[in-house]
Amino acid sequence: MSTALDQTAISRASKYVVFFEQGDGSQKDLLGGKGAGLAEMTRAGLPVPPGFTITTEACLEYYKLGAKMPPGLMDAVHDAIHELERRTGKGFGDAKNPLLVSVRSGARVSMPGMMDTILNLGLNDTSVRGLARNAGDVRFAQDCYARFRKMFEHIVGHKAPQDVFEQLEMAIGAVFGSWNSKRAIEYRRFQKISDDWGTAVNIVSMVFGNLGDDSGTGVAFTRDPSTGENKLYGEYLRNAQGEDVVAGIRTPEKITDLEKSQPEIYKQFVEIAHKLEAHYRDVQDLEFTVERGKLYMLQTRSAKRSAEAAVKFALDFLHEGTIDEREALRRVDAASLDQLFHAQIDPHEKYQIAGKGLNASPGAATGEIVLDPDTAVVRAKAGKKVVLVRSETNPDDVHGIIAAQGVLTARGGATSHAAVVARGMGKPCVAGLEALRVDRRAKKVSLNGTTLKEGDEITIDGTTGNVILKKLNLIPPPSKLPEWLNEFLELADKYKKLGVWANADTPEDAKRARELGATGIGLTRTEHMFMQRERLPFVQAMILAKDAKERAKQLKKLLTFQRKDFKGILEAMAGLTVTIRLLDPPLHEFLPSLETLLVETTELRITRGERSKKYKERAALLARVRELHEQNPMLGLRVCRLGIVYPEIYAMQVRAIFEAAVALRERGVDVRPDVMIPGVGTDEEMRVTADAVKKIADEIIADAGVDLTYHIGTMVELPRACIIADKLAETAEFFSFGTNDLTQTAYGYSRDDAEASFIPFYLSHKILKEDPFQVLDRVGVGELMREGIGKGRGTRPDLKIGICGEHGGDPSSVEFCHEVGLDYVSCSPYRVPIARLAAAQAAL
Amino acid sequence: MSTALDQTAISRASKYVVFFEQGDGSQKDLLGGKGAGLAEMTRAGLPVPPGFTITTEACLEYYKLGAKMPPGLMDAVHDAIHELERRTGKGFGDAKNPLLVSVRSGARVSMPGMMDTILNLGLNDTSVRGLARNAGDVRFAQDCYARFRKMFEHIVGHKAPQDVFEQLEMAIGAVFGSWNSKRAIEYRRFQKISDDWGTAVNIVSMVFGNLGDDSGTGVAFTRDPSTGENKLYGEYLRNAQGEDVVAGIRTPEKITDLEKSQPEIYKQFVEIAHKLEAHYRDVQDLEFTVERGKLYMLQTRSAKRSAEAAVKFALDFLHEGTIDEREALRRVDAASLDQLFHAQIDPHEKYQIAGKGLNASPGAATGEIVLDPDTAVVRAKAGKKVVLVRSETNPDDVHGIIAAQGVLTARGGATSHAAVVARGMGKPCVAGLEALRVDRRAKKVSLNGTTLKEGDEITIDGTTGNVILKKLNLIPPPSKLPEWLNEFLELADKYKKLGVWANADTPEDAKRARELGATGIGLTRTEHMFMQRERLPFVQAMILAKDAKERAKQLKKLLTFQRKDFKGILEAMAGLTVTIRLLDPPLHEFLPSLETLLVETTELRITRGERSKKYKERAALLARVRELHEQNPMLGLRVCRLGIVYPEIYAMQVRAIFEAAVALRERGVDVRPDVMIPGVGTDEEMRVTADAVKKIADEIIADAGVDLTYHIGTMVELPRACIIADKLAETAEFFSFGTNDLTQTAYGYSRDDAEASFIPFYLSHKILKEDPFQVLDRVGVGELMREGIGKGRGTRPDLKIGICGEHGGDPSSVEFCHEVGLDYVSCSPYRVPIARLAAAQAAL
Repeated sequence: MSTALDQTAISRASKYVVFFEQGDGSQKDLLGGKGAGLAEMTRAGLPVPPGFTITTEACLEYYKLGAKMPPGLMDAVHDAIHELERRTGKGFGDAKNPLLVSVRSGARVSMPGMMDTILNLGLNDTSVRGLARNAGDVRFAQDCYARFRKMFEHIVGHKAPQDVFEQLEMAIGAVFGSWNSKRAIEYRRFQKISDDWGTAVNIVSMVFGNLGDDSGTGVAFTRDPSTGENKLYGEYLRNAQGEDVVAGIRTPEKITDLEKSQPEIYKQFVEIAHKLEAHYRDVQDLEFTVERGKLYMLQTRSAKRSAEAAVKFALDFLHEGTIDEREALRRVDAASLDQLFHAQIDPHEKYQIAGKGLNASPGAATGEIVLDPDTAVVRAKAGKKVVLVRSETNPDDVHGIIAAQGVLTARGGATSHAAVVARGMGKPCVAGLEALRVDRRAKKVSLNGTTLKEGDEITIDGTTGNVILKKLNLIPPPSKLPEWLNEFLELADKYKKLGVWANADTPEDAKRARELGATGIGLTRTEHMFMQRERLPFVQAMILAKDAKERAKQLKKLLTFQRKDFKGILEAMAGLTVTIRLLDPPLHEFLPSLETLLVETTELRITRGERSKKYKERAALLARVRELHEQNPMLGLRVCRLGIVYPEIYAMQVRAIFEAAVALRERGVDVRPDVMIPGVGTDEEMRVTADAVKKIADEIIADAGVDLTYHIGTMVELPRACIIADKLAETAEFFSFGTNDLTQTAYGYSRDDAEASFIPFYLSHKILKEDPFQVLDRVGVGELMREGIGKGRGTRPDLKIGICGEHGGDPSSVEFCHEVGLDYVSCSPYRVPIARLAAAQAAL
Repeated sequence: MSTALDQTAISRASKYVVFFEQGDGSQKDLLGGKGAGLAEMTRAGLPVPPGFTITTEACLEYYKLGAKMPPGLMDAVHDAIHELERRTGKGFGDAKNPLLVSVRSGARVSMPGMMDTILNLGLNDTSVRGLARNAGDVRFAQDCYARFRKMFEHIVGHKAPQDVFEQLEMAIGAVFGSWNSKRAIEYRRFQKISDDWGTAVNIVSMVFGNLGDDSGTGVAFTRDPSTGENKLYGEYLRNAQGEDVVAGIRTPEKITDLEKSQPEIYKQFVEIAHKLEAHYRDVQDLEFTVERGKLYMLQTRSAKRSAEAAVKFALDFLHEGTIDEREALRRVDAASLDQLFHAQIDPHEKYQIAGKGLNASPGAATGEIVLDPDTAVVRAKAGKKVVLVRSETNPDDVHGIIAAQGVLTARGGATSHAAVVARGMGKPCVAGLEALRVDRRAKKVSLNGTTLKEGDEITIDGTTGNVILKKLNLIPPPSKLPEWLNEFLELADKYKKLGVWANADTPEDAKRARELGATGIGLTRTEHMFMQRERLPFVQAMILAKDAKERAKQLKKLLTFQRKDFKGILEAMAGLTVTIRLLDPPLHEFLPSLETLLVETTELRITRGERSKKYKERAALLARVRELHEQNPMLGLRVCRLGIVYPEIYAMQVRAIFEAAVALRERGVDVRPDVMIPGVGTDEEMRVTADAVKKIADEIIADAGVDLTYHIGTMVELPRACIIADKLAETAEFFSFGTNDLTQTAYGYSRDDAEASFIPFYLSHKILKEDPFQVLDRVGVGELMREGIGKGRGTRPDLKIGICGEHGGDPSSVEFCHEVGLDYVSCSPYRVPIARLAAAQAAL
């Protein structure tokens, strides 16, 4: 028996078969992650059982041939097995001293649990006797044989044949096949892994952890992947095979306990762990087996880690001098930082999931069920935590959402009213839980057979969509940036070129954004201010006003509210730009829905008659709602069109902004208000609206006699705006891409409808690679943006350009924004850390 | 008294004043149309009273100075008046022999009745006596004075002063002012005339047609402007001033009668008329006055003409050798041909207009009022002509629209259901007549105080929007192209480069289109076939199907219908391409509306209870409609998205197309079906849908063993499709621009909503110059088209590209389509002649 690889074996190995001694860690594409790791460890002289890898090319060829073994592959595998026989001194299928192997899949990137493994291959009715004799343990051998047959049958779908090479060929085919199993495809889709890579297959001489108490198997991380602590972390199961650890049949001991029971092994393992971490300059996830007191390494790979651990690892490696700043920044997945800013269900809690809705706004919330917004306010004032549970929400519910810890709805998708408002406020929301029945009259809700009444406790998890019918303990998010994250993000700021701003509609949002590192407000949505409970009646009265005089009266009341809003935000952002968007949505969004009114008036007509006062009143309202009703409100009388047709509304808003600004300026506050005109599609719209803003603003500033600079710009959110950007820039002093609407119009998709109907179908059928509302479409929407940027800067070289859609907080989109030369991205406050890191990564 | 112009007078004339002797006919921009005509006639030695023109530049300067006379203008006018005094031997304001002048506006293009004229200026309490003495007629002089004062006061707004120069200055100011009168502005907007041109003012020595029976005044056309007949046509009023003809106080005699009463004058006039027509090489509209047996020419201008006359004039001039073919083609306004293809109210009819709605589909219709579609069918079958009168229509009404002569609705705009369907069928429609009250239960309608019952007669004029509450005699449109038009359009075909195709949804439409000269079908909308009464139940059953099996059953029934449709169309267009678009609208368009069902189920719930069978049935339907309901259906589950999510629908349609095609092919018919995929926004959509079409088509063709060529292409109607046109063209064999949707998405306008709300406001406030749904927006939408064409032909140089929106029949848009190199335009059948001419004009 010789452990060294025979040189003739190397020359015999075909392009499809690579011995561990031949490969290295850089060959992940060809050997898969696991194969590359085994090769690298073998090269480094670590104790790895002899074996070889069937390359991903063989897998691709297999699929190209219509799921057939490529010619020559099995010959090469035969040769390689003979080499293993030579080196181990065992015989494949031998009755006396049988060679057993594991057959394990291994793709370019790790897909844990998604693909298949067969252990103990090479056992048959004959060789099992050889194993029993060798191990001196008949039960052990029978156990191995039983495990093998079970695994084989489960994975290959046939009973294991007696011919061991037949076993091997079928197993290899099954591993190739597992690449296209439903769960693997779904996993890849979720993780955005290409379907074209294929998997490698690793054939490794078996070593046994189940040969008695001096044997065992373990998994370990070189540092703690949850907390980031620099301490070996893992589990060891005595007298067991690898799969037993994963299966969780017996409770394993901590890896550190090994120090007492098998100090030599522990010492050797710790040395290897350090060596591997130092070699890879990253935290490793290791698998190993101890066979009768001898340690074998079976896997090393980069460890998956929590966001917190990722940041801490990066900083620790940086401080240790292992990696430089750029590498430290690259080490953290920007999107993962999202985890850090939401309450989570305490992992120690045990509970049953009663239903699963749409994860519409992340974080967990727990509290009493309330079924209407007024009750929510009353109970919240009484110091109770409440969760608002509704069939669906509408603008009349906003005060209830404010009072509640979170929102649960039976209807509506990721862009339903509840979802949008909750996300805007950073409150957890589970939407569209269709099994939920809400009976407001009986003050009860039922879910999958369980009925709860108002006041009963519930927990929702907006990160997962789970609903639990009891109160659970939650772990709150940090109220401010923890020190380690602050250090890391300051490092990011050192490299990023893009400004990172936030979308904020209230002084509280603005303060939070500033704490999280935003250096400006890129979008203040004034309509959210209109929807607050105490204001909505005035907004409605303004819309329903019979004449200009009545309308003016209502607008005057709103002016007071808005001035206060703007004052708060401008003060919170002193010294930084606050970009305020004038009213955007169509007016009917502020009125009761047409559907509700139709039902109500029909009821009143029948029960009280057409002459009743109540009927007449509601019928009049219905008439006005009908008048304002639109077939496609997204493309109707909204954005700057509204401001042009009803100039008094924008005039009120501009007045509120500048009265607030001069009042602060008089107190010496450094206010920097910018006015953003939404939905401009023609240069005339831009000019007319900007002129109207300028007239009022300049008058107020002149009257106050203060020194105040402001800018007027536009939200570029229509294809035509991109095309005529050169003309818009004659008037506009800044652009902010509204990529949500730009995506809607470029694709001709209504987000509300598309994400609830065909986009899921498109994603699952690969018509779309990604939801363009979540990841910016560089090909189409991006091209329009490039055109807009080029033309805009052609007219006005110093034109400030940003983005203020939800894309502003998506790392891939941030990267694109960097590439095309934007000045800033603006996103919701809690995504500011993500954007800061993504901006730095884009710049690297 | 000398009639020749003094040379020193010329040198004295400033840049603001041009004597008739100085100008010529080419100077319309400077002198206005009337001034240029007077100058040209003067130069040609025709008898024109002495006079001069104040230029349009003076008018523009007047406005630039804020409605003040430019310095030097009145001095020049004084000098010019003195020159007139010299030439006429009269004195301005003179007590013995007063010079009187007319002051008349005259813009670059004629704006009949829109601007102002003052006659007899120069009369005051003194000079009126001189006029009386000169004319030998005190009553005449007093009549002139009275007329003058009345006109002056009416136009200037003040009593006429005694100072004649003051009169003149005020009159000139008033004419300048009339350029910006409300009616002039509205006229210009309607006629798309620039506001920046200004008007000239013509000051002409008065001649009098009211000095006895040897005097008179007339207007005449050198040929008949209604019928096109080559015969002098006009009217003459003895002993009258010019305004009397227009005012219609006395009945004038025919111009030809003058031959008997004043043969010398008649002969001289005919000679002048011929001379002017020959000089201008066009039919002239002339004004003249006879003063005591002497003829004076007061105006010559190109005659306004009916479409029929325009074509006949052009052909006659061509045949006479006066103009060449190119000029003949240029002579006819392509858009005017529309007049020729609709029934019109007999101009001899006298009637009162009871109301005016939206002119939603041109032509007039008359018949009995019917208030529901079923009654329409019954009455039509009984041989009655009916007009369907509804609050608004929906898909359930289509059989009623088919049965009716025309449609009148109280609600809805130019793109309401009634309007779109009626236009598609070429039926007259007046929509959105808001004063109309329809009471279906009482079977009555009322309009502005008059109540009519079902069965009463009514006339609607979809060209004007007028509604008349009685039956009127109509003049029907020609059933085929009249010979003269055919000749003219064949001339057009000789020059045009663009193919002119038609949109046709039925065999009848296709035949008509072919008769009108279409050389292909650019758009067959399959959804209109779905909406026919006998099919709708199957369509609805298909949509409501509980499972795939039930859906397949209903689709099978629809297959039979569609196959028949396609057979008819393909046969009618044998030898020519028929482009069939697969299903486009969202499914809920085929179901009752959500609103109707909400009211209905609420009524049923209260009156019959929730357990009633009827309630349950409708509630189930409501649930499905709610499921399909979309916030923005225009941007929802429609176009190819529908065909991808429900592939069985497109499969049925493709099967119907190719089963029809092979059946005809087997009979030797040369069928050329092309399949058009609507609303493609990604290359994956194009590929997946085209593959599915190809699979079915090829299978059917192979099974039949016939030789049949077809193409698969796409409707380019989304901004993103233009951007990725290079990729689409890898699969698509042709493009057809759907400029309606492309305009909607480029601007972010929903046509349904925008044309009913803000577009009218935008037009009147000049935010938009034109409605982009009527005239193609070259700057934005056109730019996207250019990009799509360039990229598409980059991939596939022989890519066939057309347009199939309503723009395809608009002359200005046709011109653009020619410019950007399209292969064809496709429009509704009756617009084919317009497009043929417009295409020729674009090529010239």
